[in-house]
Amino acid sequence: MNTAASSQAVTPPRTVPAAPAQAGRPLAEVDTPALLVDLDVMDANIARVHGDAHQAGVRVRPHAKAHKCAALAQRQIAAGAQGVCCQKLGEAEALAAAGIDDILVTNELVGMAKARRAAQLAGRIRLGVCADHPLQVQQLAEATQAAGTCLDVLVELDVGQGRCGVTSAADAVALAQAIAAAAPGLRFAGLHAYHGGAQHLRSPAERRAAIAGAAARAREAVAALAAAGLPCATVTGAGTGTYALEAASGLYTELQPGSYVLMDVDYAANTPAEGSAPLGQALFGWCSVISLRPGQAVLDGGLKAFGVDCGLPRVLHPGWQVKGISDEHTVIVSTTADAAPLALGDKLRLIPGHCDPTVNLHDWLVAFRGDTVEAVWPVTARGAMY
Amino acid sequence: MNTAASSQAVTPPRTVPAAPAQAGRPLAEVDTPALLVDLDVMDANIARVHGDAHQAGVRVRPHAKAHKCAALAQRQIAAGAQGVCCQKLGEAEALAAAGIDDILVTNELVGMAKARRAAQLAGRIRLGVCADHPLQVQQLAEATQAAGTCLDVLVELDVGQGRCGVTSAADAVALAQAIAAAAPGLRFAGLHAYHGGAQHLRSPAERRAAIAGAAARAREAVAALAAAGLPCATVTGAGTGTYALEAASGLYTELQPGSYVLMDVDYAANTPAEGSAPLGQALFGWCSVISLRPGQAVLDGGLKAFGVDCGLPRVLHPGWQVKGISDEHTVIVSTTADAAPLALGDKLRLIPGHCDPTVNLHDWLVAFRGDTVEAVWPVTARGAMY
Repeated sequence: MNTAASSQAVTPPRTVPAAPAQAGRPLAEVDTPALLVDLDVMDANIARVHGDAHQAGVRVRPHAKAHKCAALAQRQIAAGAQGVCCQKLGEAEALAAAGIDDILVTNELVGMAKARRAAQLAGRIRLGVCADHPLQVQQLAEATQAAGTCLDVLVELDVGQGRCGVTSAADAVALAQAIAAAAPGLRFAGLHAYHGGAQHLRSPAERRAAIAGAAARAREAVAALAAAGLPCATVTGAGTGTYALEAASGLYTELQPGSYVLMDVDYAANTPAEGSAPLGQALFGWCSVISLRPGQAVLDGGLKAFGVDCGLPRVLHPGWQVKGISDEHTVIVSTTADAAPLALGDKLRLIPGHCDPTVNLHDWLVAFRGDTVEAVWPVTARGAMY
Repeated sequence: MNTAASSQAVTPPRTVPAAPAQAGRPLAEVDTPALLVDLDVMDANIARVHGDAHQAGVRVRPHAKAHKCAALAQRQIAAGAQGVCCQKLGEAEALAAAGIDDILVTNELVGMAKARRAAQLAGRIRLGVCADHPLQVQQLAEATQAAGTCLDVLVELDVGQGRCGVTSAADAVALAQAIAAAAPGLRFAGLHAYHGGAQHLRSPAERRAAIAGAAARAREAVAALAAAGLPCATVTGAGTGTYALEAASGLYTELQPGSYVLMDVDYAANTPAEGSAPLGQALFGWCSVISLRPGQAVLDGGLKAFGVDCGLPRVLHPGWQVKGISDEHTVIVSTTADAAPLALGDKLRLIPGHCDPTVNLHDWLVAFRGDTVEAVWPVTARGAMY
């Protein structure tokens, strides 16, 4: 083994792939596969959700794990967002480097390496993180003390997701006491009470029941914390599927929807609450036909362009549907005799099954209005997983 | 809209995420989530498959879509590979920039933008591409003529996959004639005859039958081409599941397995042919326990660290199994009363469900031997999708 080569290998000998588009040019010229964002639809989604939050008197802190894009986060902040959420410390570091200065990491950090990075970042921006175990608090306390910085720590409460979070109000109080005892390095900032499992319940009644249960658990913890002299400045949670319910709860002070800005097939399958229109589809895959036979076309984006954990993408060409997907291909077939014609080289739009993992596959978002590319945004925190 | 900001936005304001490891350090220090490559196992897989090809008297041109890594491709070439395959022109450009000088793109290119890039790249390395339609040939001919370069073009024949490729020997001859007529810019280089659908047929008998059918179709086309005065210098195909069958066919001159070097849960589910041992598992996800409750642990890698199109990853910790996965978390549960203990911060290995889309999520491969990191390799062509 050549050790010289090994140690050189840690310097990336590559740059990010070139952008597939140029601002000001026609959409039809955008190279494929790519991801497109319809700015008119995106702006309407932002206005709608931020307006709903404003009307309910709660803050909105959109989840940037959906888009990982500093340019998009800046638009959300310009439209009244408090800052953003991230799911990973590396995402927060990347967005902070791009100018976002108020970030909540809605996840647990374990290990001194990450605790030290969090303490460093807390010296540059307003940073919050979650905890559900005393060891995490102890490591964060040690790191912030050494760095001389101050970090907001929220107790994560499991409100029905069954994943992370303390599972009782008593544990929430004990952990909040440990956080408060680590002042001035740590500041107890409130409760993180997100119910991910409720977001894709299809009927409004199911979602209402799930969030009523989540709010009841959160309410009990908030009361226990207040009784222990630890009032929650922030109670944060909610996603695109349920945000109106948390907003109306009288308990949550902050909403963290992420997908609302882009949307996908999975969220579009939710039945909206009565009197409420669905959010608009702003995110599209953009693929070319590279092979064609009667009744079948092969597109040049596959599993490396679309996240399929929530199902296949949906192709937008009348009379055609997605038959299957492989690493670099999506096969579409015509389903009616009068299906719209297709020629080799034609470019089509597809709606991704799940927006978050799809965006994470791409280095660029091509933002357009009408038929023209308006901006090409780097996916700032793509791949920032640690 | 601020157009100044838009045009600035095409310059990436970010670098590739930092490497999670350092050569020479203990494996236990590698940050999570990450991807590990066991070099002893990988070297054995390479020796085995390249040895099989050598013994059968056929060339091996491993498919780099599985690993996208120039350092790994260089090891395959040092172990006798002719060069590598890529699935995307962008992959070929990235690997060529890193020093790989003989690449076959096993896919169709459509549109003058890509034809021009291929013609440019053909001026720097030996490059081959596939075609299944006269329009592709016409565009490549125009581009190579303008660039003054020469490109190998193989006719892709559909041998059972039902995706790309001409579907008859007569169409193969007509297309090869069009390629040959475009000399000196294009050179008819042979037949691409890959049966992807055969790779994961579980029983050796099913795979044998599928490849017998594929070889029969390829043989008919090769004979028709020879009769038309267009002998196939190369007949290329095969994958990790079937390469021994194509090697023994007496027809194929070149094998393109990709996954053999790393392996995954899906390939391990194939029953090996009689007398043949399975290839070794060289690729592992590496995750930390970030949240813990009785009988359940949450790991810090999810859908953005593991491709799940072929199923969930498998965790390697006695008495534990994967229960579910979400964007940034994998939940594992204990399945026996005497399951191995777990503590917050423990790091575990997981076998990815499908190696190709998993590697494409990562910027780095951490190559190790025993308990020590030997090298940290950039995933050179990660995200190179156009």
